[in-house]
Amino acid sequence: MNGADVLCDVLLANDVTVCFANPGTSEMHFVAALDRKPQMRCVLGLFEGVVTGAADGYARMTDRPAATLLHTGPGLANGLANMHNARRARTPMINIVGDHASYHLPLDAPLTSDIEGLAAPMSNWVRRIEGPADVQPATEAAFRASLTPPGVTTLILPADAAWGDANPASPGKVVLSPPAVDMDAVREAAAAIRAAPGRVGMIVRGRAARADALEIAGQISTACDVRLFSEVLIARMQRGRGRVAPTRIPYPIDAATTLLMDIDVLVLVGGSEPVAFFAYPGKPGRLVRDDCQVLTLAAHGDDLQAALGALRDELSVKPSQQTVFATAFPDEAAPRGQLTEDAIALSVARKLPANAIVCDEAVTSARRFFALSAFAAPHDYMMGTGGSIGGGIPMATGAAIACPDRKVINLEADGSGMYTVQGLWTQARENLDVVTIVFSNRTYAILHGEMKNVGVNAIGENARRMLDLDHPALDWVSLAKGMGVEAARADTCERFDALLDSALSRRGPFLIEAVI
Amino acid sequence: MNGADVLCDVLLANDVTVCFANPGTSEMHFVAALDRKPQMRCVLGLFEGVVTGAADGYARMTDRPAATLLHTGPGLANGLANMHNARRARTPMINIVGDHASYHLPLDAPLTSDIEGLAAPMSNWVRRIEGPADVQPATEAAFRASLTPPGVTTLILPADAAWGDANPASPGKVVLSPPAVDMDAVREAAAAIRAAPGRVGMIVRGRAARADALEIAGQISTACDVRLFSEVLIARMQRGRGRVAPTRIPYPIDAATTLLMDIDVLVLVGGSEPVAFFAYPGKPGRLVRDDCQVLTLAAHGDDLQAALGALRDELSVKPSQQTVFATAFPDEAAPRGQLTEDAIALSVARKLPANAIVCDEAVTSARRFFALSAFAAPHDYMMGTGGSIGGGIPMATGAAIACPDRKVINLEADGSGMYTVQGLWTQARENLDVVTIVFSNRTYAILHGEMKNVGVNAIGENARRMLDLDHPALDWVSLAKGMGVEAARADTCERFDALLDSALSRRGPFLIEAVI
Repeated sequence: MNGADVLCDVLLANDVTVCFANPGTSEMHFVAALDRKPQMRCVLGLFEGVVTGAADGYARMTDRPAATLLHTGPGLANGLANMHNARRARTPMINIVGDHASYHLPLDAPLTSDIEGLAAPMSNWVRRIEGPADVQPATEAAFRASLTPPGVTTLILPADAAWGDANPASPGKVVLSPPAVDMDAVREAAAAIRAAPGRVGMIVRGRAARADALEIAGQISTACDVRLFSEVLIARMQRGRGRVAPTRIPYPIDAATTLLMDIDVLVLVGGSEPVAFFAYPGKPGRLVRDDCQVLTLAAHGDDLQAALGALRDELSVKPSQQTVFATAFPDEAAPRGQLTEDAIALSVARKLPANAIVCDEAVTSARRFFALSAFAAPHDYMMGTGGSIGGGIPMATGAAIACPDRKVINLEADGSGMYTVQGLWTQARENLDVVTIVFSNRTYAILHGEMKNVGVNAIGENARRMLDLDHPALDWVSLAKGMGVEAARADTCERFDALLDSALSRRGPFLIEAVI
Repeated sequence: MNGADVLCDVLLANDVTVCFANPGTSEMHFVAALDRKPQMRCVLGLFEGVVTGAADGYARMTDRPAATLLHTGPGLANGLANMHNARRARTPMINIVGDHASYHLPLDAPLTSDIEGLAAPMSNWVRRIEGPADVQPATEAAFRASLTPPGVTTLILPADAAWGDANPASPGKVVLSPPAVDMDAVREAAAAIRAAPGRVGMIVRGRAARADALEIAGQISTACDVRLFSEVLIARMQRGRGRVAPTRIPYPIDAATTLLMDIDVLVLVGGSEPVAFFAYPGKPGRLVRDDCQVLTLAAHGDDLQAALGALRDELSVKPSQQTVFATAFPDEAAPRGQLTEDAIALSVARKLPANAIVCDEAVTSARRFFALSAFAAPHDYMMGTGGSIGGGIPMATGAAIACPDRKVINLEADGSGMYTVQGLWTQARENLDVVTIVFSNRTYAILHGEMKNVGVNAIGENARRMLDLDHPALDWVSLAKGMGVEAARADTCERFDALLDSALSRRGPFLIEAVI
């Protein structure tokens, strides 16, 4: 039994049963090992950004890591941007990066690079396997590290560790420490909430944004006059009719600081204090006032739902406490004629199937969708969390593999979608139930706004050529067809509605190019 | 005048007049500055791998750096794989990576990452600009570093250095040290050549692979019985009828060691000793015998042509010395019927227009082309040099921008082409004269070979699904159309020849999907 077999066995023993992959020569022994393990589902991405982005989407929906298989430093490099998004979402992920045989490295062959150096900025944990005997402990450590607290781990597998003889292993399940609740933090938060009714904000992240935990947060909010917030970029939130809906902190800095202006105490449930996405000359970087007290109720890796439960108890709020939420969809006529961003948002929110998964990388285009989705059928909502574009198509791909019985709706910007457009091919190959809606505005619309933010109101030829995607316009129907995904184009509301109805009534990947 | 303006002015003063770009918010002041400099040609890539790969192709053809503009750590990460290729080719390149304002970094906003850490493995030189006053010296240092010795430089531009007031600069041209010739190395190489006629090999790289330098190397080879080699991956070589044609060291390890078995002395003209691309159990990593003497005639950054000239003088070879080379194309009938890799290679070599630029990323598919190209019309030949796939389409893009009057032929594998397929859009937008020939074999063919090399002869379902690109087959005609590039498909030799004739007789981008 070689090291590669042991690595597979450790993964399988811990229920890591999906490997998103784009292998190369140095991974051939690992590929051969995977070939001997039909229990492992191997999913090919035609670019590594698809591989890591799909692993992110998969893990967000299962709360378990997928493995990825990447080829040396450049293959890892291609996957880094979506590892960055995953790291910011605290997604468990085990990246297996093949490298040259250890004795080959001093020769500095063409593919040699500093893999640890590349991995570290986008990983929570990095380790190079030292030899065949180290495969089992290193892989078990990577699995543990991926889940406690959740994060991106990178395991470097030298070819000679993969092909070398390892002792026949019978790996068992790695025992994970149960997540904790810090009762001192609970009492401190409760005291602060009691002391400043109406002036306490609470930000829910990670597992605190699931329906059960949101319900508790909503009970505290209702009973104790606490304002409930979510960050601008949401890793995963359970949302829709009947669910507690936090207020999302807006992206524009002025709107964000205005929203939080009269918050005296901010309670964090998972994660750190929210800050401005970018700095702008003369504007603040923090969103709360400098004299706002920031408390951490629970950190990533803690049991966030239990912490909220303990806080509810500490505040003597009854588990039967009713929460306040809206149920009625806005009474608004279906738009007609020329398609617009807002018309798409309304249509998707109205027609959303129950239990759908929405992957939103529409950037500026689907802002209205989030507000409307509080009234839509119950669903899971996910976004890229690190600000790196190119996460949407892969994330939808991974979510669909995680949840084959649920419809995945990918709201996608044209600029972002092009980054990892290759993911459509994986959706076709795996026949995934994903409807991709491309908001085809033929521009990096967010950057036009940012040019205004830096004081430029009239843009010239050089800027226009860097911010606009026209000349030629992308033809998304042809792009999708090129990768085996059925597609159609809409430029009116009526046509869009008809295409969406059709896409929702069938299984398998479909792309709608929504020209706006 | 702000820092961003100064940065542009320093680039322009040093004839850096092309900026391949994919900007983001933190680069808006730089974009605004570029907008004020119509002398700078800004070329948008829809993914950063296109941006850096195009800069590589541009610089290989001009021997001058282009600038790239990348957005924070993830944008840089997306460009790293082609920076890796460029670094291995010793390509001059100036990557400008925008970052948050310096005072915003401690807040750890979502897009924050360790940019220096990411850049270092794929850069020869990295520097963070310290403030507006540092823009001019830092940019001048980056320019100098990009050319002496040639290499990839990364300059990190914090937003507040871009928007801050800088003294009005009047940057002049950076003075570069002239490249040197090491006469001791020349005498040592000459002595070794005299001592072992027929048993000395000489590897030409970098500028030593241009026609004039090759002619000198060929004269030495003919007069002194020196065997002339090139590496398996060639950054740029001037090739074709009437030009000296070194023997390329083959990729398969056994063939490479057999070729070099009776070499007692290896003389390096630019670069280091060639080694095996990968390690294989029980096979050597070095290609020459362990007792082979390895001498460096000249290093990258030296004047390689002058060093060869000095060696010729030292060996008393006359500048009138004739070289031996083939001129007649193989007398071979044009293939008919079902299209094959070799038929494509023959057709392209026969029809190659004079002064064409060939970008070869066909991996396994165009092996015969290189042999045949010695008899083709004079041309420049370039490959990816770091073993990272995804360089071909961008490289062709950059080469076409560098040389608008020359036809660019991109021999492209389907697997590699998908990595940076977005480059086709840039070819359409800039109306570049590139013919892309996709060898559509619907598999990572090289990996099937490597599976055999590791001893696996029968592959199963998991391996097949990771190595083959079928189900669905990629439809390259639709992909190209989706990005505004005209395209057509051929599966017979006759159809391929007709399409190639047509593509060569017109200007502008065209893609031929060659189904083999």
